[in-house]
Amino acid sequence: MRDSPEFRRIRQLIASTAGPALAELEIGPGDDAAALRVPEGEAVLLSSDMTVEGVHFLREWLTWEAIGYRATASALSDLAAMAARPLGVLLSLAIPPELDGRMLDELAGGVGACLRDTGAALLGGDLSRSPGPVVLDLGVIGTARRPVTRAGAIPGDELWVSGELGAAALAASAWRSGMEPDPGARRAFERPRPRSSEARRLCEEATVHAMIDLSDGLASDAAQMAAASGVRLVIETARVPLYAGLESWAVEEFALALAVGGGEDYELLAALAPGSFSGGGRRRDGEDAVEWVRVGVVEEGSGVEWLDDAGNPIPPPAAGFDHFQSGG
Amino acid sequence: MRDSPEFRRIRQLIASTAGPALAELEIGPGDDAAALRVPEGEAVLLSSDMTVEGVHFLREWLTWEAIGYRATASALSDLAAMAARPLGVLLSLAIPPELDGRMLDELAGGVGACLRDTGAALLGGDLSRSPGPVVLDLGVIGTARRPVTRAGAIPGDELWVSGELGAAALAASAWRSGMEPDPGARRAFERPRPRSSEARRLCEEATVHAMIDLSDGLASDAAQMAAASGVRLVIETARVPLYAGLESWAVEEFALALAVGGGEDYELLAALAPGSFSGGGRRRDGEDAVEWVRVGVVEEGSGVEWLDDAGNPIPPPAAGFDHFQSGG
Repeated sequence: MRDSPEFRRIRQLIASTAGPALAELEIGPGDDAAALRVPEGEAVLLSSDMTVEGVHFLREWLTWEAIGYRATASALSDLAAMAARPLGVLLSLAIPPELDGRMLDELAGGVGACLRDTGAALLGGDLSRSPGPVVLDLGVIGTARRPVTRAGAIPGDELWVSGELGAAALAASAWRSGMEPDPGARRAFERPRPRSSEARRLCEEATVHAMIDLSDGLASDAAQMAAASGVRLVIETARVPLYAGLESWAVEEFALALAVGGGEDYELLAALAPGSFSGGGRRRDGEDAVEWVRVGVVEEGSGVEWLDDAGNPIPPPAAGFDHFQSGG
Repeated sequence: MRDSPEFRRIRQLIASTAGPALAELEIGPGDDAAALRVPEGEAVLLSSDMTVEGVHFLREWLTWEAIGYRATASALSDLAAMAARPLGVLLSLAIPPELDGRMLDELAGGVGACLRDTGAALLGGDLSRSPGPVVLDLGVIGTARRPVTRAGAIPGDELWVSGELGAAALAASAWRSGMEPDPGARRAFERPRPRSSEARRLCEEATVHAMIDLSDGLASDAAQMAAASGVRLVIETARVPLYAGLESWAVEEFALALAVGGGEDYELLAALAPGSFSGGGRRRDGEDAVEWVRVGVVEEGSGVEWLDDAGNPIPPPAAGFDHFQSGG
């Protein structure tokens, strides 16, 4: 962690937003590196996720608090997809000169809020001037006794999706059209909740063969799971859980395209051994509730097959979807 | 790790530059997160280091290969300072549209060359468009049975420095003046070598109480060690190992300012139990040689005291040094 005097205030600011005390932490932020002791038998999971102004968000859309929260949640979602318990994050931040102290307070506050919501700690990071966009890069570390990959789906598995899809894509689509999204869509974009605890609970209640987070959208991420597992995923479009607010904005076909092409929801797709999960009713976890919905099955073959209400194959509903991140 | 189709080629490119196979690797890059199994009794060390075009380098100065190498070495130096064995890196990369395939090949090649030189593996990362500068953020992970912090220096300790100081600062200073540095200075800036193996060998040969890497320069980093350890560091300026090429460029006072104020050399400062290290002769590690030099002692008190040839206190030689990164 660089510690040039100019940035000491900002570093302190961010350190002050750190999440809960971590039993595994041996050396905290402030030295050249942080040190953790990982419980015996646990694997260490690592990922990073970069958020670039003008590519992943426009500052006109969001508060700085939401930008910090969303960037952190996006990174932690990768750990949730492996059924890992999040331990901490490394925050690298490049900021242009026009960002004043209040904006930085808000940005750091958003990172800290997400850390508190997920139980992860700030372990370190780096700070730099930027001659252009705000850039946040979050390195994340977690542990899992048995990490779940995207490569373990086998023919016969059931496909389940957490939560509702399409709200964040709707928000981005509305902003791009100069409109204000409805509050539910805005909130989905601003405060995506990494499904960490939900993923770990699913692993206790069901036999999870494969999992992936829907950062790029169900269409793209289902194709990733199919390719990694060497199987075909068959998805019934009528079963895809759509964000309820979509019907006020879009006809059925466009709503489905937003839901499966838009990504950004950071929900999960899981392949479960048949009959191993009852699903159905809402599961409540404190204030947060997530419903798992069965959307299809795994077959021999390759790629993703989409079925209409009558069970007939149809073209992929989000082919050519102009994903906001498709260029980035 | 995002995997939008546009970036698959680049991701593959970077994956192809990955370092050696890692016995600890359970799940490699390509899934939502990578997974490692850390040997029992070892702590996990984590740090990140961001390199921003226009702040940490100008593309006119360096080849893309050197930019990739330097960014990676800079991040791994933080692990060396903790006496950790480097395991792997997460590479997040934001690239502007004008970077063509050849430039990316070179950039990725530089990252890969540093990974091979240090024995670290590419574990994952993220790729994004940038609307402005090239940004590289390297998250690094390593292990150590007993990590060495900057906080353990005690009165009576000897202060030792690895290598020679000032070459990288000289290169940056020459470029800023529109001049071409000498080859040794250019090489020091282009291919800084993280002192990973040297640090670990020092821990075997001596009783190391504290260590820090000289990323910000001896003046600044000695002050960091003094503050973290609650001691005073006393440094004899005549003992500071100067890059030999400096004498062709600068008078004595400016040479010393470059050497202790410039940083960027990624050498190490260590506080050792008195008499626990013989140092002296050059130690050769394959092609790489580094000499440790005793530069001072630790006393009760605070801050850093600089002594002239006669042993009299003098003002800090790099006060007000215009560090290239001082704003970043």
